[in-house]
Amino acid sequence: MDKAVQELLDLHAIKQVMIRYADRIDANDPEGAAACFAEDGIGNYWGIYKGRSEIAARLTELIKDYAVTSHHLSNENIQLAGDKATSMAYVYAFHRMIDSGEPMHYWGRWIDSFVRVDGEWFIAEREVIGIDLIFPGVKKRDSVKPRHPGYIER
Amino acid sequence: MDKAVQELLDLHAIKQVMIRYADRIDANDPEGAAACFAEDGIGNYWGIYKGRSEIAARLTELIKDYAVTSHHLSNENIQLAGDKATSMAYVYAFHRMIDSGEPMHYWGRWIDSFVRVDGEWFIAEREVIGIDLIFPGVKKRDSVKPRHPGYIER
Amino acid sequence: MDKAVQELLDLHAIKQVMIRYADRIDANDPEGAAACFAEDGIGNYWGIYKGRSEIAARLTELIKDYAVTSHHLSNENIQLAGDKATSMAYVYAFHRMIDSGEPMHYWGRWIDSFVRVDGEWFIAEREVIGIDLIFPGVKKRDSVKPRHPGYIER
Repeated sequence: MDKAVQELLDLHAIKQVMIRYADRIDANDPEGAAACFAEDGIGNYWGIYKGRSEIAARLTELIKDYAVTSHHLSNENIQLAGDKATSMAYVYAFHRMIDSGEPMHYWGRWIDSFVRVDGEWFIAEREVIGIDLIFPGVKKRDSVKPRHPGYIER
Repeated sequence: MDKAVQELLDLHAIKQVMIRYADRIDANDPEGAAACFAEDGIGNYWGIYKGRSEIAARLTELIKDYAVTSHHLSNENIQLAGDKATSMAYVYAFHRMIDSGEPMHYWGRWIDSFVRVDGEWFIAEREVIGIDLIFPGVKKRDSVKPRHPGYIER
Repeated sequence: MDKAVQELLDLHAIKQVMIRYADRIDANDPEGAAACFAEDGIGNYWGIYKGRSEIAARLTELIKDYAVTSHHLSNENIQLAGDKATSMAYVYAFHRMIDSGEPMHYWGRWIDSFVRVDGEWFIAEREVIGIDLIFPGVKKRDSVKPRHPGYIER
């Protein structure tokens, strides 16, 4: 197959991994989300988690306080390199808190690397960066760190 | 043409139907949105509406209270099967209410099937699911149903 | 190369220009964002700005009051015409205001034309339209103009 066509298929397949991951999180299925990682994949979720089972446990913890989550992806800039790839993508996530019933909003980045194993793409490593939040009742934010990756301070 | 190339073109064309539908809704053009459906298409908008004219009438009703709508699509997972396709996509929709002048926010899913007629893709059936909302002045939400499709209760 | 493959590559490349522009704005890099324009590009940001240096100066002014911005793109409808292209895309942008520490939300449209120069795509002209906003402490909006492009008044 034409190299350009293969690359277009790879871009599509990698984006679909991101979409499946979001689908699994929003379906309250941390194991399904963790299955988007390679077996030796690494999740950097405010701490390093190695392998699908550690990642699933961490995701379980991260979503336990929410009755609803909705992870809306955009701005993916996937860079292919044969059987590997890197990407940054934007995520806006809506959350409904179980305790208070109030909404929480999150704006973040996924800094990813991907790997192709037996013809299928998996997340090799994902670092999650939250660049801003709105918590119920909190009008102001004390810190604006971390920044968008590569933010230029002036 | 190469089968893979045809599939990439189909994925693109189907996504453009979704985008045109959103454009038409946001342009206050329910007839234009309904024209994205096949002639015998079915819209499941909290009730079943059959054919473009029923769908246009239903959409007219659904958007009549809003001075502004803005439907932001993402996370489309289109699955091709020849001249048919299925998809789930995420939608966040901003609304400005005519009466109060206040904003309303909506997070939903489009559960779609598509059909190719004379070389052009149309929506065969669309079910719209709203998984959460923020109405002005409403801090809490009594029910979190319906859920994200396939949500795992624990 | 197959014409259809070239067009799919062009669609991808043009979307990546939009994504890089958003990345550069969110990284507080107006010069980097302006470099997404052709040398004689035109930015219509509530006024006409010609060439990268005028555009960078205008962008600097537009983002100076925000500690954080996050521009989430979607709904791009890119139309190719050889070495030129046009597009409308949706943008939701989160902002954190420096002075008050409060959030500001923006829903807009990018009305773009693109040009290919030496094999690389650039923005030839961009008109930015904000169709709605939420400012802290402002519950209602006095005007709903400008409208979504092509909005049908009834």
